[in-house]
Amino acid sequence: MRTAVKIGVIGAGSAVFSMHLVRDLCLTEELWGSSVVFMDVDEQRLVTVHRLAQRYAAEIGAQLTFERTLERRDALRDADFVINTALMGGHGRKEAQRDVEEAHGYYRGLRLRFLQLKLMLAVARDMERHCPDAWLIQSANPVFEGCTLMTRETTINVVGLCHGHYHTQDIARVLGLDFEDVTFEAPGFNHCIWMTHFRYKGEDAYSLLDEWIETRAKAYWRAWQPAYGETQMSPAAVHMYRLYDAFPIGDTVRALWDPMWWYHVDLETKKRWYGPLGGFDSGIGWSQYLEQLGQRVAQIQQAMDNVDSPLTGLFPPEKSREQIVPIIDALANDRQGVYQVNVPNNGAIANIPDDVVVEVPAVVSGSGIQPLQVGPLPERLMLGVMTPRLLVTERALAAFLTGDRRYLYDTLLSDHRTQSLQQAEDVLQAVFDMPGNEDMARHFATRPPLANH
Amino acid sequence: MRTAVKIGVIGAGSAVFSMHLVRDLCLTEELWGSSVVFMDVDEQRLVTVHRLAQRYAAEIGAQLTFERTLERRDALRDADFVINTALMGGHGRKEAQRDVEEAHGYYRGLRLRFLQLKLMLAVARDMERHCPDAWLIQSANPVFEGCTLMTRETTINVVGLCHGHYHTQDIARVLGLDFEDVTFEAPGFNHCIWMTHFRYKGEDAYSLLDEWIETRAKAYWRAWQPAYGETQMSPAAVHMYRLYDAFPIGDTVRALWDPMWWYHVDLETKKRWYGPLGGFDSGIGWSQYLEQLGQRVAQIQQAMDNVDSPLTGLFPPEKSREQIVPIIDALANDRQGVYQVNVPNNGAIANIPDDVVVEVPAVVSGSGIQPLQVGPLPERLMLGVMTPRLLVTERALAAFLTGDRRYLYDTLLSDHRTQSLQQAEDVLQAVFDMPGNEDMARHFATRPPLANH
Repeated sequence: MRTAVKIGVIGAGSAVFSMHLVRDLCLTEELWGSSVVFMDVDEQRLVTVHRLAQRYAAEIGAQLTFERTLERRDALRDADFVINTALMGGHGRKEAQRDVEEAHGYYRGLRLRFLQLKLMLAVARDMERHCPDAWLIQSANPVFEGCTLMTRETTINVVGLCHGHYHTQDIARVLGLDFEDVTFEAPGFNHCIWMTHFRYKGEDAYSLLDEWIETRAKAYWRAWQPAYGETQMSPAAVHMYRLYDAFPIGDTVRALWDPMWWYHVDLETKKRWYGPLGGFDSGIGWSQYLEQLGQRVAQIQQAMDNVDSPLTGLFPPEKSREQIVPIIDALANDRQGVYQVNVPNNGAIANIPDDVVVEVPAVVSGSGIQPLQVGPLPERLMLGVMTPRLLVTERALAAFLTGDRRYLYDTLLSDHRTQSLQQAEDVLQAVFDMPGNEDMARHFATRPPLANH
Repeated sequence: MRTAVKIGVIGAGSAVFSMHLVRDLCLTEELWGSSVVFMDVDEQRLVTVHRLAQRYAAEIGAQLTFERTLERRDALRDADFVINTALMGGHGRKEAQRDVEEAHGYYRGLRLRFLQLKLMLAVARDMERHCPDAWLIQSANPVFEGCTLMTRETTINVVGLCHGHYHTQDIARVLGLDFEDVTFEAPGFNHCIWMTHFRYKGEDAYSLLDEWIETRAKAYWRAWQPAYGETQMSPAAVHMYRLYDAFPIGDTVRALWDPMWWYHVDLETKKRWYGPLGGFDSGIGWSQYLEQLGQRVAQIQQAMDNVDSPLTGLFPPEKSREQIVPIIDALANDRQGVYQVNVPNNGAIANIPDDVVVEVPAVVSGSGIQPLQVGPLPERLMLGVMTPRLLVTERALAAFLTGDRRYLYDTLLSDHRTQSLQQAEDVLQAVFDMPGNEDMARHFATRPPLANH
């Protein structure tokens, strides 16, 4: 089967993301004839991506058409697939807000998601009008909160995708296993997934992991000079495994939700758990991430300017590990495959409510996305991690949906960094008072007194 | 109807508790002919209570028989009702343990419940053998954890009782309302109940409470010299109401579970929220409580020694507010009444799991205990208070049932007072190392490393 589809890309100005998408589309002949509509609010970046996509397809000889628009509805109208990769405000704004939060005693900042959630819901609502039967592929964060919100509040088919689970390859590499012979199951919530099954050549492989931890981990960590993102085999991951009896996978190890404060007290603590750079979310690691992102964007800009040099030099014609295009192919052309997706639970994890989006393996085909029933998660994991993590999300969604600032207070008061009611009240007000946050401030306009009586 | 029943009292050596029970029984003619078996491990206190009970019944002319035993099975055998009021180790031991906990940075101590839970489960298990059809009336704390544990693990009919909901009378008094014309509904978990309905002469009375808060509370608090236990109309109660949209009732205001750390940071903070004594759970308040308890015990001892003076002087023949004897009467004699009870939820509160013991109004009669369906609790209350409170209980029960110390770590790591993994590990070990805690230490023998990797 070979079906031409229309794909709308929201936030397409991210050249790195869009060019990986374009490459995978160009290398998937089964989707040739399809059209891609890039949408972004930044016209300059949009023009860049559009031209690069056209050049790349021409170099490959791929039969795809590319359009660009500043209007969301043009990207959505009659789309078969919508990919939302938009980050509201961009990284610069996030950094400025983090400075304010840190000045109030919140080292490395809070995780307020208002703008992202608002955008996600707006996109899904627009889809109800312009392409009610399309699939929404949510690739920008927060996937867990955003997909749960959109699936509860709209009728759109949503699937959230993330790379995190690929870090099982790091486990295989460090243990010296051929990943081809590894199978695993790592369900949970996005950025909170846990390897409940791990086999090598059909045999349980947790014993190999235990042996590595017992006999080789210490030596490994002594010589360890990980890049900022290499946290999969960190002391933090092993510690979580000891605490919860399941190995954390991918971004899970970053422990970005507040209950796991003990990995993040200060830079020294981060270094102890995540290696010399302090991991992805230290000041060092995050700077390196932003720097590399900047370098990549500069490379792309250079390629854009250098019309004589082939783009396949910068983006060699090899398929990426991204699941986006294979899943579009699976859905459009009934090509059955197993993927790691974020979809409403509906019983896939037996002891999680139906209306919560979970990350689980699923068969994707012309029948749609059919999650595997992975059974209940162990009680140790539920009471240690999953239930408190879900509470963080439910509070964030209630805050978003009601505009009631008290749901934000709940989370702040559970935050180990909060030392007083006044501090919680002040940091929120300071964030709301920032230029660019007027919309958020209006949303949370009612201001119940927290610190006074 | 007038039925003679056998009532076993576990922990009967508590003279204050037992004498209130004896008085209510003596004043309930419908239960005359019944026998009461007092059981305690402290023979001297047991003898005292037994003699006082016999004297009191003789003074009143009540037809009741009283026995005493050091053997639990003798109190349980063929009992119709078992009342468990036993506090393992007594207050002295709790204070010593608190000192150790405070030395590790836990101001006013932890709330480890191992010994109490163990005793409760043992009593319920013994009842399965010796009186499988009897009602167990659980009056010692922790009612929430203990009743949930016993109803999940045994087949015994359990009802937990508490005085807390009577503090609605304090609200009526302060607002100047005649309590006879007040109706209310305050469901939740024991020590975590919230007034969802409040009417005066059939009209919503929350507006009267709001008006008091708005116009009279500040003046009231300026002149306020509450006894240690008078927290119902404290700034803490009003603050909780502002946070959660429902007024907290009784012990709820004490906010004894860890998430509400902000009322308990230090004595100054406690004074600000609970008045000059810092409330029930400050060093001052708790000392006064223990002192008054001691004075009452001394009075009873004096009455015991003074055989010529009538006991009705110390215990005037008026029924107490306790629900225990009326509920026994209601069950034994089919005398229908509405009481505030702690029983397995089974849908009484729509958004709480069935197998959690909730505190709800119930009709009690010859048909048994039939909770009223109070509907779902508001989301604000669920996400702000009930869900985190339930998590504390589920972790405590999982710790108890598995002996896995990591469930205790979960709670300690969520505790705002915990500043490091080492501190959490150390305080637990220090408690386990205390003389008298050998049994608990054995139960939690496996000691997974928390602070090291």
